[in-house]
Amino acid sequence: MDTTIGIFGGGQLGRMMAQAALPLNIHCTFYEANVTCPSAILGKVFTSHESKDLKPFIESAPVFSLEFENTPLNEVDELVQSGKKIYPPRQALAIAQNRLSEKNLFKALDIPVAPFLAVDNLEDIHIAVEKLGLPIVLKTAMGGYDGKGQFIIRTHDQISQAWEELGAAKSLIAESFVQFSREVSIIAVRGQDGDVKTWPLAENHHHQGILSHSIVPAPKSESLQPVAQEYITRLLNHLDYVGVLTLELFVTSQGLYANEMAPRVHNSGHWSIEGSTCSQFENHIRAVAGLPLGETDCIRPTVMVNIIGQHPKIDDVLRLEGAHLHLYNKSERVGRKLGHITLMPHDSENLTDLCRKLAKILPEPLALQSDMNI
Amino acid sequence: MDTTIGIFGGGQLGRMMAQAALPLNIHCTFYEANVTCPSAILGKVFTSHESKDLKPFIESAPVFSLEFENTPLNEVDELVQSGKKIYPPRQALAIAQNRLSEKNLFKALDIPVAPFLAVDNLEDIHIAVEKLGLPIVLKTAMGGYDGKGQFIIRTHDQISQAWEELGAAKSLIAESFVQFSREVSIIAVRGQDGDVKTWPLAENHHHQGILSHSIVPAPKSESLQPVAQEYITRLLNHLDYVGVLTLELFVTSQGLYANEMAPRVHNSGHWSIEGSTCSQFENHIRAVAGLPLGETDCIRPTVMVNIIGQHPKIDDVLRLEGAHLHLYNKSERVGRKLGHITLMPHDSENLTDLCRKLAKILPEPLALQSDMNI
Repeated sequence: MDTTIGIFGGGQLGRMMAQAALPLNIHCTFYEANVTCPSAILGKVFTSHESKDLKPFIESAPVFSLEFENTPLNEVDELVQSGKKIYPPRQALAIAQNRLSEKNLFKALDIPVAPFLAVDNLEDIHIAVEKLGLPIVLKTAMGGYDGKGQFIIRTHDQISQAWEELGAAKSLIAESFVQFSREVSIIAVRGQDGDVKTWPLAENHHHQGILSHSIVPAPKSESLQPVAQEYITRLLNHLDYVGVLTLELFVTSQGLYANEMAPRVHNSGHWSIEGSTCSQFENHIRAVAGLPLGETDCIRPTVMVNIIGQHPKIDDVLRLEGAHLHLYNKSERVGRKLGHITLMPHDSENLTDLCRKLAKILPEPLALQSDMNI
Repeated sequence: MDTTIGIFGGGQLGRMMAQAALPLNIHCTFYEANVTCPSAILGKVFTSHESKDLKPFIESAPVFSLEFENTPLNEVDELVQSGKKIYPPRQALAIAQNRLSEKNLFKALDIPVAPFLAVDNLEDIHIAVEKLGLPIVLKTAMGGYDGKGQFIIRTHDQISQAWEELGAAKSLIAESFVQFSREVSIIAVRGQDGDVKTWPLAENHHHQGILSHSIVPAPKSESLQPVAQEYITRLLNHLDYVGVLTLELFVTSQGLYANEMAPRVHNSGHWSIEGSTCSQFENHIRAVAGLPLGETDCIRPTVMVNIIGQHPKIDDVLRLEGAHLHLYNKSERVGRKLGHITLMPHDSENLTDLCRKLAKILPEPLALQSDMNI
C-alpha cells in the first residue's frame, strides 16, 4: 500500500490505529499537543501546542482521520479547503459534537431516544421538568465526556444548582431519565464503496462515569443485535460515513434507546484486536485507505477490562489464561486510561473465573468484582 | 514494563518482534547494516554498516536477542563481556551455526537424524558415498539457508562437481538422503523460569528451497505432536534455552527425523500472530523480558502463505474471507520475502477454497496451487 494517514490526536486510539496500519504498509502522522504522546513511537507528531499552523501536518498525508470527536471543525475545514480528504466526513463530526443535533438526527431516522428538550436558560429547565417529569438529565450540548458536563435533577430544588453548574455552556439539553437495565454499544464500519460491517454488541459496565469493562458478545443480545445493526446502518448511510462509528444504546423495557454516537473507534471495541477476525482499528484504517473491509465476527466470547489510574503487576496479568495486555505508555494519574486487558480464554466457561481473578489483581478494579458473574 | 530489548538484525522478524513488544511497553533497538530496514519504523537502528563499534548498540538496552541465527559470535561475546544478557544463550547459537555440532547434539539427545558424516576433503566424500550409499546431500557445515550451500549427489560422477561447488567452505557434512513424505516444524518457547510451551506442528511446503506456505495444525499430526514436543523440550532444557526455538523435522516411514534447528522465531510460525492466543513473537519477547509465557493453542486451522518477489494486489488479498496481510515494507526482488498472508476463515472448511483463490491472486504462488487440497 505504502501510504500515509494523518490522524488528529495521538493518544491510545491513534496508537492502536497505527499499530493496525503497520502490517498493511500504511504509516500514520499525528497532530497532537503532547509530543511524547502514546502514538509518538509509531509516526511523526506535529505538535498542536507550539504552533497552530496546520500546514505541515496537512502536507504529511493525502488522507486524514481522527481519534477525538471534538477535533475542531475549523481545523477540519482548513484541511478540506486544501484539497485533502478526511474520514469520517465533516458532517458526521459536526453532528456528533452537538448532543441536540445528534438527538434530532436519531429522531429523524426513527431511532428511539428518550424524550428531550433544548435548554437555553433557567426558565427552559423549569419547562423541561414540567413536560418530561423528574428526574431529568441536564447535559451541555457540546463538550463533556466520561460523565463530565452533566447533572441529574431529581428534585425541584436542584434546578438552580444544575443551572449554576452547567449554565455557562449556554446550549444545554434536558433528557428524560431512562430506566434501563444495561448499556450496550454497537460498532460498525463503512467502506468507501458503501459496504457496512457490524461487530457483535458489547455490554458495557461503568464506574463513576468511566468504562470499566465490556463483555462481548453482550449476554442475551440475540434479539437486540439485528435492531442495533439496523439503527447504526441507517446512521452510516445517511451520513455517507466512511470509517468506524460507535452507537451507545440503553436496553429498556421498551427496547433499545440510542444514547449517543462517537464518530471514531471506541473503548468498547478494544476487544476486537484479538476477539474479532478484523479489529475496529484495522477496519477503520482499511476504510480510510479505501481498502475492502475485513470480517467482524467474534472469534470467542471476550471481556475487555480497562486499566485506570494505576498499573497492575504485569506478571500477574500475563499469568491469566488467554490474557492480552495493552499498555499505552502513559504515566499514572487518577482516572486516567493507562491500558486495557483482553480476556479470551480457550474455554469461555472460564471467563467469569478469570474476571474474578483479575478483579483481585487490578489496583483499580472499578466495576469488576471478585464475585461477578457473566 | 517500560524496558528495551536490543535485537541483532532489523528485518521482518525484528519488525514483528517489535510489533508484539509494543503493547507490553517494551521497545526495541536494532543492529543492522541497512538503516531503512523493515524494523526501522519501530525503534532506533544502530548501523553495523558504517561502524563496527558495537558499544552504542550495547548501551541501548539491558537485554538482547536476535532475528538471525548467523549473528557473529564475536559480537555476542563482546556483549556478554560488557555484562549484558542475550537470549537465546550463546551456546545455542554456536551449535545452530554449525550443522555438524547440531547433528551431533541431536544424536546425543536421542533425537533421530539421517546418518551423516563429516567431510573435510574430496576423499571424505567418496567415503561418505560408500558408507551412506547414494543419493547423499552435501552441505556446508556453516552458512547457507533457503536451499543455498547444498548439493544432492545422485551419481558417482557428480562427486567432483559437488566438491568444486562446496569444497571452498572447508567443513562440510554428508547426509543420507531421507525419503520423507513431508516436512513439518515444531516451535516452542522456554521462559527464564524454565516453563516450556509448544505450538502445534506446522506442515511446510517449499518451492525451490523457499518456504511457500505452512498449514497449521499439520494435517494428520496427532501422533507426531507429542513426539516432536518431546524432542524440542529436550533441546530447550539441555541448552538452558530462553526464547523461541524452531525444529524442522521430516516425516518418514520410520517416524520423525530432525533436519535442523533455528534459534529464533521462524517463518513457519508467522501463522501464530492471529492463529494462536499468544504469537511466537509475543512469547519470544515475554521470555527475553523475563515475563510469564502465554498460551500456544491454535484458535482455528490456519494457512500462512509467503509473498515472494512481487506484491499481489492488496485489494484482492483483503477481499478473501479471514485474510490477514503482513507487509514488511521491502522493495520487490526475485526470491525476496516481502510479506505473508494468514488465512483463518471462520469456517475452516473454506481453507482449501481460499488457498485456491489465493493461488490465482499471487504473482508468485510458489507451491500454492489452484487445485490444491488440504
